[in-house]
Amino acid sequence: MVVKVIGAPYASCTRRVLACLIEKEVEFQIIPIDILKGEQKSPEFLKLQPFGVVPVVQDGDYTLYESRAILRYYAEKYKSQGTDLLGKTLEERGVVEQWLEIEGQNYHPPIYNLIVQLLFHPKLGAPVDDKVVKESEEKLEKVLDIYEERLSKNKYLGGDFFSLADLSHLPFTHYLVNDIGKGYMIRNRKHVNAWWDDISSRTSWKKVLQL
Amino acid sequence: MVVKVIGAPYASCTRRVLACLIEKEVEFQIIPIDILKGEQKSPEFLKLQPFGVVPVVQDGDYTLYESRAILRYYAEKYKSQGTDLLGKTLEERGVVEQWLEIEGQNYHPPIYNLIVQLLFHPKLGAPVDDKVVKESEEKLEKVLDIYEERLSKNKYLGGDFFSLADLSHLPFTHYLVNDIGKGYMIRNRKHVNAWWDDISSRTSWKKVLQL
Repeated sequence: MVVKVIGAPYASCTRRVLACLIEKEVEFQIIPIDILKGEQKSPEFLKLQPFGVVPVVQDGDYTLYESRAILRYYAEKYKSQGTDLLGKTLEERGVVEQWLEIEGQNYHPPIYNLIVQLLFHPKLGAPVDDKVVKESEEKLEKVLDIYEERLSKNKYLGGDFFSLADLSHLPFTHYLVNDIGKGYMIRNRKHVNAWWDDISSRTSWKKVLQL
Repeated sequence: MVVKVIGAPYASCTRRVLACLIEKEVEFQIIPIDILKGEQKSPEFLKLQPFGVVPVVQDGDYTLYESRAILRYYAEKYKSQGTDLLGKTLEERGVVEQWLEIEGQNYHPPIYNLIVQLLFHPKLGAPVDDKVVKESEEKLEKVLDIYEERLSKNKYLGGDFFSLADLSHLPFTHYLVNDIGKGYMIRNRKHVNAWWDDISSRTSWKKVLQL
């Protein structure tokens, strides 16, 4: 069954899902939504995803949204196919889930603010809120200090294996490094930098960027 | 093995974990941390939880933090003990994960802001930011409208069974209804109100409130 990914291949949360499907060697088809034209707020799309954000996946008659929930579903459904992204034991999965939550709750909010202020606002002609930028950068610096400590002892966030916890960081960190001139936040930290070089060089991520 | 819950029994994220352990009939012992005295920022605690927030669980020599990661770990580890909180199939679990993510990403941020502004700031003598209150209430209203639609078709968020998705809403909604005079946001919505009456009447939650 080909998985339909209803989303925008250049949008972060869609990219998160696509990276997972490629790692899991799951065949997919992108059904494009033009988020720049606001198609994700159309009545038709809102029936699938009431919050009006991409992506949604349709797998036969099964529909699912929220990118990190989709990651978990495919990582578990195809546990023994492609890259194992959850760990071998419940305890390993627990630690993967811990760092996936940290990504969602601690890493995502400040990096999202930075991307919105420094990438999207200029494109939209909206003013940049310097206070939000400063506060978000300070928050992200503190989070990255904790990552540096973690990654000085473990090659990946979840342990010695690449997992959903790492994968989930790809889309927004890509913007941070490549689009808003904040790559030094990664580069200035030896172990975070090595981790970023590693995960952003994965074949799956390179394929996502070409879609 | 008695699970040690290092946290504050009156703190929301600790309560989330305790409700889960009670539902799963897992024996636990609370190791109290006085967060009002800032003990969660002590060097000793930061070794366990570098972000300086409660709770942390210790289960033998296994240590885990991030409340929603802890929920998933115990719901899976004791799948067939106590209340099944994940669903019977991978597809049911997918939907539970979807609504658990919605709780973390869409419901939690505005309700957290409201609680901080209207409950904690007055207690600490800090000023209330009316703009934050207004924006957060507007955001939460929109989220609750989607919940109302969902709950008009399903008894619970994940489907026809109580799950982690519902459980995770308990601590902060309790504050909303009981402590900051915003109960009307729940009461004004027929199906959200029935859902809240149901989940907040669970024996597990009543026990948590007594701890």
